[in-house]
Parts: sequence; C-alpha cells; structure tokens
Amino acid sequence: MASSTEQGPSLTARLIAEAFGTFLLVFGVIGTALFASSNTGYLGIALAVGLTLVAGIYMVGRISGGHFNPAVSVGVAMAGRMSWKDVLPYVVAQVVGGAIASTILFAIAAGGKEGYLAELQAGGFASNGFGEHSPGGFGLVSVIIAEVVLTAIFVWVILGVTESSAHAALAPLAIALTLTLIHLISIPISNTSVNPARSIATAIYGGPDALIQLWVFLVAPVAGALLAGATYKVLFARR
Amino acid sequence: MASSTEQGPSLTARLIAEAFGTFLLVFGVIGTALFASSNTGYLGIALAVGLTLVAGIYMVGRISGGHFNPAVSVGVAMAGRMSWKDVLPYVVAQVVGGAIASTILFAIAAGGKEGYLAELQAGGFASNGFGEHSPGGFGLVSVIIAEVVLTAIFVWVILGVTESSAHAALAPLAIALTLTLIHLISIPISNTSVNPARSIATAIYGGPDALIQLWVFLVAPVAGALLAGATYKVLFARR
Amino acid sequence: MASSTEQGPSLTARLIAEAFGTFLLVFGVIGTALFASSNTGYLGIALAVGLTLVAGIYMVGRISGGHFNPAVSVGVAMAGRMSWKDVLPYVVAQVVGGAIASTILFAIAAGGKEGYLAELQAGGFASNGFGEHSPGGFGLVSVIIAEVVLTAIFVWVILGVTESSAHAALAPLAIALTLTLIHLISIPISNTSVNPARSIATAIYGGPDALIQLWVFLVAPVAGALLAGATYKVLFARR
Amino acid sequence: MASSTEQGPSLTARLIAEAFGTFLLVFGVIGTALFASSNTGYLGIALAVGLTLVAGIYMVGRISGGHFNPAVSVGVAMAGRMSWKDVLPYVVAQVVGGAIASTILFAIAAGGKEGYLAELQAGGFASNGFGEHSPGGFGLVSVIIAEVVLTAIFVWVILGVTESSAHAALAPLAIALTLTLIHLISIPISNTSVNPARSIATAIYGGPDALIQLWVFLVAPVAGALLAGATYKVLFARR
Repeated sequence: MASSTEQGPSLTARLIAEAFGTFLLVFGVIGTALFASSNTGYLGIALAVGLTLVAGIYMVGRISGGHFNPAVSVGVAMAGRMSWKDVLPYVVAQVVGGAIASTILFAIAAGGKEGYLAELQAGGFASNGFGEHSPGGFGLVSVIIAEVVLTAIFVWVILGVTESSAHAALAPLAIALTLTLIHLISIPISNTSVNPARSIATAIYGGPDALIQLWVFLVAPVAGALLAGATYKVLFARR
Repeated sequence: MASSTEQGPSLTARLIAEAFGTFLLVFGVIGTALFASSNTGYLGIALAVGLTLVAGIYMVGRISGGHFNPAVSVGVAMAGRMSWKDVLPYVVAQVVGGAIASTILFAIAAGGKEGYLAELQAGGFASNGFGEHSPGGFGLVSVIIAEVVLTAIFVWVILGVTESSAHAALAPLAIALTLTLIHLISIPISNTSVNPARSIATAIYGGPDALIQLWVFLVAPVAGALLAGATYKVLFARR
Repeated sequence: MASSTEQGPSLTARLIAEAFGTFLLVFGVIGTALFASSNTGYLGIALAVGLTLVAGIYMVGRISGGHFNPAVSVGVAMAGRMSWKDVLPYVVAQVVGGAIASTILFAIAAGGKEGYLAELQAGGFASNGFGEHSPGGFGLVSVIIAEVVLTAIFVWVILGVTESSAHAALAPLAIALTLTLIHLISIPISNTSVNPARSIATAIYGGPDALIQLWVFLVAPVAGALLAGATYKVLFARR
Repeated sequence: MASSTEQGPSLTARLIAEAFGTFLLVFGVIGTALFASSNTGYLGIALAVGLTLVAGIYMVGRISGGHFNPAVSVGVAMAGRMSWKDVLPYVVAQVVGGAIASTILFAIAAGGKEGYLAELQAGGFASNGFGEHSPGGFGLVSVIIAEVVLTAIFVWVILGVTESSAHAALAPLAIALTLTLIHLISIPISNTSVNPARSIATAIYGGPDALIQLWVFLVAPVAGALLAGATYKVLFARR
C-alpha cells in the first residue's frame, strides 16, 4: 500500500496492476456468488473476497498500492497518500478490470444447463440493490448507512495498517480480512458493494433494475471513503 | 498490546482507539449475528468476531493496546501490565464505542422489511442470556462456568502472546483467533459475552429480560479476567 | 517447538505448559463438537482445533515446545529432538490437562436442558470410535489406516516446519492448520484422534464402548508418530 | 518457491518432496471431498486444499519449490524460473504422489458401510468432469475457460508472490489461499482441477467416463500455465 518510491513503477505498470487486481477480486467474489453460493452460503462469498485481496495485494500491491476499488483510491487521495491526478486513471483501470471479469463469468454461465444464465440474470447477476433487490429486503436508507459506514471502516483500516511499516508484511492480510468481515455483515443488506467497480461489473449484466439502482453504489462508497480519508488524521493521530 | 512507551500516545488518542475498536468489534459480531447468521450459522459470527479483532488490533493496537473489552483491561491491569487508573476511562470508552455500534445496527434494522426490527428485538437483539435466553437452553451455573473459564483463557492467551516481542507481528492474529474459538464453543451456551461492553451494547436494545440478566455478563467475564491476571505469573513463568 | 535452550524452562514450567495447552485443545475441540457442531458441522470442529493450537503454541510453545499430544511427544523423541526421559512426564501432563477440560465440559453440559447430558453421553460424548461408533460407519482397518497415516503426516509436518528457523514465526500457524486439515478428512472416519490425550479425555465420559475402543486411539496415533519420527531424516534430508 | 541455490538439494530430495507434497494435497482435498463434503459442503473442500498447500510448502517448499502440480512446474519453467529438464521428473513424482494418496483413500473407503465404495465410484470418486459430470452441469467450453483462466491466475500469483524476497515468509500462505479461492469459484463448474496430477489421481478410480474426460484436465491447466508463464514478465514487470 506504500506510495510510489522515488523511482517507482510507471503509471502503465500500476494501471495493469490495478486492472488485474480488480479483475481477480470481481472474478473471485462474483464467481463464488453466482456459481457456488447456493452450496457455500454467504460464508463462501465472504471468504472468497478476502482471498482475492490476499492474492492481489501480495502479488501486485507493491506495484500499484493494491486498491482495486475506486472508493479506496478516492479515500487514499483524500488522506493525502496518493496524488489526485492518478485517481481517474486508477478508476478507469479498476472498472475495466472488473468488467472483464464479469464478462468471462457471463461466458462461463452461458455454458451452464438450459435456462441457467437466464435465471442468474433474472436474479440480478449478483448485483447490489436495495428494497426488493436487497437480499434481506432492506430499504434505501439502511443500505446507504451500511455502505457509508462500512466503506469508511474499510478505508480507516487501510490507512491505519499501512501507516507505519511495523506490520508491513501482515497489512495485506488485515485489509483482506476486513473486507471479508464487511461482507459477512452486509451481504444481507445490500449484497455488499463498498466498491463501485464491483457494482458496475455486475450491473451491466444484471438487467435494468440493477442499472437504475447503481447510483447508490457509486455515491455511498465514495462518500464513506471521503469521510474516512478526511477524518483519519484527526481521529487516529498517535498523540 | 504493548504498554505505552516512554512518551506514548495521549490518553485521548488511546480512548478514541478503544472506542473505535470496540465499535468495530460490536458492529462486526452483532451485525453478523443479527443480519447474516440465519445464513452463515455460528461459523459466520465466530469468524466475524475474529476478523474485527484482527482489523482493530493491527489498526489501533499500537495506540491503546487494543483491548476493546472491559474484562481485558481489568485483567491486564491485574497482571500489572497497565495502570489501574487508566482502567475506568478505558471501560467508559469501550462501552460508548459498543453502544454506538449497536445503535447504528438498530437504525439499519429499522429499514428492514415490515416487522423485521420487532422480530429481532423479540429475539433479544443478539443479547447474552441464560436459561430460556441461552441459545441452547443452558442454565445459570453452566453459563457462569463457561464465561469465567473462557474469559480466563482469553486473558491468559493475551498476556502470553504479548509477553515477549518474539511473535509481536502475529500476536494480534493469535488473540483474534482465540476469540473466534471462544465463540465457536460458547455461542450455544450464553451467546458468548466474555466482554461486558458487547453485552451492554445489545442489552440496551434487547428488552427487559436482557437487562435483567446483564449482571451475569458483567460479573463473570470480569471474574475470569481477574483470575487470569492474578495467576498468570505463577502458572506461566518461564522457570 | 524448539528444544530447551541451554538454561531453558524448568520441567515443572514445561509440564504446566503442556497441561494447559492440552486443556485448551480438548476444551476447544470437544466443546465445539458437543455444543455447537449441530449448527457448525464438521467445519466448526475442524476450525476450533486449529485455533486452539494457534493460541496454545504462540502462548506456551516457547516454554514446552507445544506438543499437547502424547503421539507428538513420542514422534519428536523418536526423531531425536527431545529426550526420551521427558516423554512420560509430558504424557502424564497432557492426559491430566485433557481430562480437566472434558470434566469442565461435563459440568457445563450437566446444566443444559433436561436430558441433554444423557443424550450427549449416549452419543459417546464426542469419543473416537470405529464400526458403529464411527460417524460414517468406517470399520477398524479403515480407522487404523487413517489414524496412522494422518498422525504420520502431522508429525512429519511438525518436524519439517520446525527444522530450520527460517519460518519460526509461522510454524505454529502451519502446524495448527495441518491439524484442521486432518480433522476435515477424518471426522467422518474416526471422529479424529491422532492424539491419545484427546481420546482419553472423552472416553472417560463416553460410556463402556468408548473405553473398549480406546486402545485403537492409543496405538494407532503412536504408531504413526513412531513411523514419522523414524523416517523423517531419510525422507526429508535436504540432500 | 525459490529455485535451487548454488549447492541446493539433490534431485532425489526434490522429487521426494514433490511426491510428498502432491500426496498431501490429493489426500487432503480428495479425502475431504469423498468423506466429509456431504457435511462441510464446498467450503470444507476449498479450505482443505488451501491447508494442504500451507503445510506442504512450509514443510518441503524450501527443498523442491513446492509445486505439487505439473501445470505449476510447466508455468514456472515457461517463466524461466526452473530448468525445463527438471520438469519431466517433477511431473512423474507429482503423479506418483497423487496416485498413492488416492489409492490409500480407496483402501479407507473400502472399509466403509456396505455399498459405500461402490456409491463413491458411481459418483466418479471426486473426479473432474464436464457436461453431466460437472457438479453444476457446465459444458465443455465453460469448463475449459474456467480451467485455463484459473490456472493462469494461480501461476501469475505464484510467480508474483515469489518474485522478490519481500514477503517470502507469507508467500506460501498467499499461494495456498489462492488455491482455496480457485476451488470456491470452480468446484461447481469442473470439480476444480488446475492440476493434472490431482485429476489423474481420481480418474484412475472414477470409472470410464472420468478417464474419457481426463484429457481436458491435462490440456486446459497446462495451457493456462503456459499462458501465464509466457505473459508474466510483460504484464507484471515493475516498470
């Protein structure tokens, strides 16, 4: 999660890393949600998302910082740990990586039993949602509270565990496990976004309602990330 | 888990850290218990609580020691690793942090389907309990034995893994996984407290019976912690 | 897992550590098996046992080596990493620690709903067994093969990850996760022993059949451990 | 995962290590799939496979590199990190180790209840498959896409986390958790191969259809590994 060193990786290398990491994250979590969750329940999805982050951050975190999430990039920039001018390219790379992942999953699903793909799409293709599209039937306000608070927690933890180099080796694990925790709490509420790239990746295959509700999962995570980035120093300064 | 260094973080910084960590712990474990456990079972709750500790201790443990639990603060003081005068402020911060978490969860639950919140409250809002309020129907004596023994185990482990700096980087993981273990054993018995701040946070939304039985989950964890703090050196001195 | 240093912990300190660790192991795995496994399935038991080892080894491993298992002590001695004269006291401490754990669990179970304890005892109190007492109905030969092979694997892994100091900090984690793996495979076969102290701890409350079948879970794990201890150097010498 | 040092372990030592590691991997994942998965679901299998890798790599990774998988050996050679002349002996050792594991599992299963072994064999003995032999009914194209993409991800992650020595101690954990992730996604699709040695080990006991479909699980993982090995430097060069 370290910012670039003096002569760090090129922007191209960093964008490939972000696209790959977000590809891995979406492929893992949405693949598990679509194909395996009828067997594994929410636990399987929550574990999968943590495992994608462990793999992604240990693999390419030293290149790009390992955000894999537009909200995280915004929050890290807000906290002054990344240049604002890099945020837009990061976000584009993340959205592209996520969309490639959901497209491959769509192709795999198309080879399932007759009617399988149609059924997955009718169920929203693992999109985020509120109201009747919330897994547990939670309304818009509940979903916004959950997404804002949980994204703020995620960004606070990221900023906290990467602040010093004391636990550098274990920071990826702590960040990954936090995202698993976030999913355990909020899959029933919103199907868990805290990541606009993940929400876009599924909404493009999830039908009109997923697209109509998508704005919530762009705005709420970014709001939570801005909140966390802006307050981190005040709340968690060491003295 | 280290005590403050010569010129350590201010008490204010430490109290914010304890409030945040306890907020995260209660938000994670009770959020999962309320919303997701019908899908994830006890495993989801037990994992969630461990994950909150991993995140919380790696994030703010170096500021406050990462107790997030009045019983732990009492046990650590009993073992001579923390000043007794800091215990009361720590406990207040922990109780406040936990109550903020359960209040936000209450607000999220209020946006669920019609009758959802009432149903959660009728079930005790994930409060601890004995007798008919024990998930498995265990009586008062069983609950007290379990809470005393498990809190003692928790405090012994905390004191043990933080004694030397040999495994400093992995101590948070060992502590977190121990709390997961404690939940695996005792959710059926008492819905697992070992933490008065967690018990208070749910009792305030759990109805009269939860409040009436609350004393057990203040007394038993603290008794277990005192026992562990007082015996640690005798039992586990290296020679 | 290191042998005692020049002026290491006293034998008394090491025996308390072994008794405590085995207490923790049995309390965790059998507590979960008895009370929670109807909710968590085998996964809960398998995770619990790994978590007890993580906690126990990080806590007291540096005192006693963290065996918590007579078969492990025998295997470690066979490999020349521990003095044979310490094996008997270790085994006694382990058996005592395990029996204390199952006795406390018995007391907790006695405070359950009417008939609860009788039902647990009729089911063997989580004892190991073969034939009609194997969870999946596996016969004696299958159980012996599984217990010998899995104990050998366990001891090979222990000897392997503790051979060099390269991964000293992570050795406890690798050992603990190996025991989780062993349980995932063999709970259906034998209810998983690989540890005579664990088998004795439950057999004393599991009724006559558990006691009659106990010999298998003393002999097979020790045989597997001797096999592993004797062959380790031949198989896994670095050149 | 490091290549041999100047005067590294002998080829014999490395081949025993590869055979043992693959034995452990197949024994763990297929043992859990055959005996426990009716209780643990896919989560148990996915965890088991990760745990086998943790144990295997920490134990013998420093001897052989810890591949335990012909596709990984091919991918590592393709990336220039291992001599091509060692690939064939590695593959033979891996296939032998895997076959020994499935043979012992077969013997254990033979001691189950009457008709148990026949039932396991009728179900394919946990073999990989497509079409009617895919757990979720996925067709050949879906299975090929999944196996190629997931093996490529696996090899990219292995090459990435072992590139520098920055996270050497945690590389085994990251690799193991990635294989758990891969299983979470793809057990429903193909019963997850990404490893020809694992596929051969079960196909020899899984009946004619398993043998007929085996070619897919030799070709697709190797294709994915070659793709990853060939593209790694282009995609993930640091600048």
